[in-house]
Amino acid sequence: MPDTPNSRATRQRTQKLPAPARATEEHQPRGARRKRETRTRLLDAAFRLMAEKGMGSVAITDITEAADVGFGSFYNHFESKEAIFAALVEWVFEEFADTLDRLASGLSDPAEVVAVCVRHTLMRARREPVWGQLLIREGFSVHALNWGLGQRLLRDSQSGISAKRFVVPDHFLCLISVTGIIFAAIAAELHFSASVTRGVQRQKASGLGEQNFAERAAAVVLQALGVKRAEAERIAQLPLPG
Amino acid sequence: MPDTPNSRATRQRTQKLPAPARATEEHQPRGARRKRETRTRLLDAAFRLMAEKGMGSVAITDITEAADVGFGSFYNHFESKEAIFAALVEWVFEEFADTLDRLASGLSDPAEVVAVCVRHTLMRARREPVWGQLLIREGFSVHALNWGLGQRLLRDSQSGISAKRFVVPDHFLCLISVTGIIFAAIAAELHFSASVTRGVQRQKASGLGEQNFAERAAAVVLQALGVKRAEAERIAQLPLPG
Repeated sequence: MPDTPNSRATRQRTQKLPAPARATEEHQPRGARRKRETRTRLLDAAFRLMAEKGMGSVAITDITEAADVGFGSFYNHFESKEAIFAALVEWVFEEFADTLDRLASGLSDPAEVVAVCVRHTLMRARREPVWGQLLIREGFSVHALNWGLGQRLLRDSQSGISAKRFVVPDHFLCLISVTGIIFAAIAAELHFSASVTRGVQRQKASGLGEQNFAERAAAVVLQALGVKRAEAERIAQLPLPG
Repeated sequence: MPDTPNSRATRQRTQKLPAPARATEEHQPRGARRKRETRTRLLDAAFRLMAEKGMGSVAITDITEAADVGFGSFYNHFESKEAIFAALVEWVFEEFADTLDRLASGLSDPAEVVAVCVRHTLMRARREPVWGQLLIREGFSVHALNWGLGQRLLRDSQSGISAKRFVVPDHFLCLISVTGIIFAAIAAELHFSASVTRGVQRQKASGLGEQNFAERAAAVVLQALGVKRAEAERIAQLPLPG
């Protein structure tokens, strides 16, 4: 996005891959540890660059420069730009699916599970805009639905339909509604946070960037799944687990 | 999308920009007419290449080669790659907003207007996958909402809320639900049509690619906007105008 203001660019620059990708492996021999660290630096740099520009616009030299790693070393870790991107996206989506699994583990009502997932996703995208950008940029891709995230959403949809909690034509339209509304909400928040200087009034009027935006979006998702308005509002405002 | 099967690639290659961009201006002097034709050829080529790969992956030489135009001539028409892309996306979105305006001109029920727009959009994306790809790739961008398409969706949302036809927290969440579900539905159809050889069974089970997919998606959109299930189903199946 060419019109990213400095404030957002700065925020993005401080973001790093979450913990699992940077596991410290203290008992490894020095060579292996350094190799691991270099790999993480490359993934970190690729994460920021690709989330900002998309895969097409990022060259391997951009990644190695941002990571402060020699160009040739790249190939000790990844075969190609596509390979590092695939590793990155897969990791981001798998880690996210695991997080949602943990968050929802104590809940039995499928509507509550969906509401918690929607709210968590929107709040995380607000906190970590680079992550949010990667999610919406890749979320519609062929792979995303085959990985853990798509599978778990399908599972939630099916259990909600079986329990007659969700009333939709089929589980696939359930999945489409949930992901579509989440991605559109993230996109709206990302681009409004980027255009704050241009239209504060408009942002206010839209309610974007407000504390309860995630809850209101969760209520609309539940409504799309056939949960009645008052019930959807109530569920969307329950305390978040964990 | 690297895994586009041949059948789809072939279909895409035959797609052209719709009529308004290629207006024949027969009474122009020969030089002006040729200049206009070259511009259209460049836009056509850019349309196909950028929709397939995204702007970042397309070089100006790719465009001039695909258009069979000398590299230098490009700059007689556009200042940069960004300029041709902006011209293209703006044109696609404006033309689409005009089409929706025409389609909905005889309808007074905001729910009917939204259902017609959803169905028309999904059917067009199925007929013209390159157009569908461009729509979902750029639809979440900063510009798209400021142009005609975003404005007309906001207007429809507001009139539905004023008429108490839609029951949502605010008009912005209305816009988010409509665009999100449409884009996710297009993405699902595009990528399932690309993976037909890999999973015919799964496609069947999901109901994607079936005749009434657009209608079922429209019903879910109306449900998200607070229209009751039975009413949403009924409206989503009314005969299309014009």
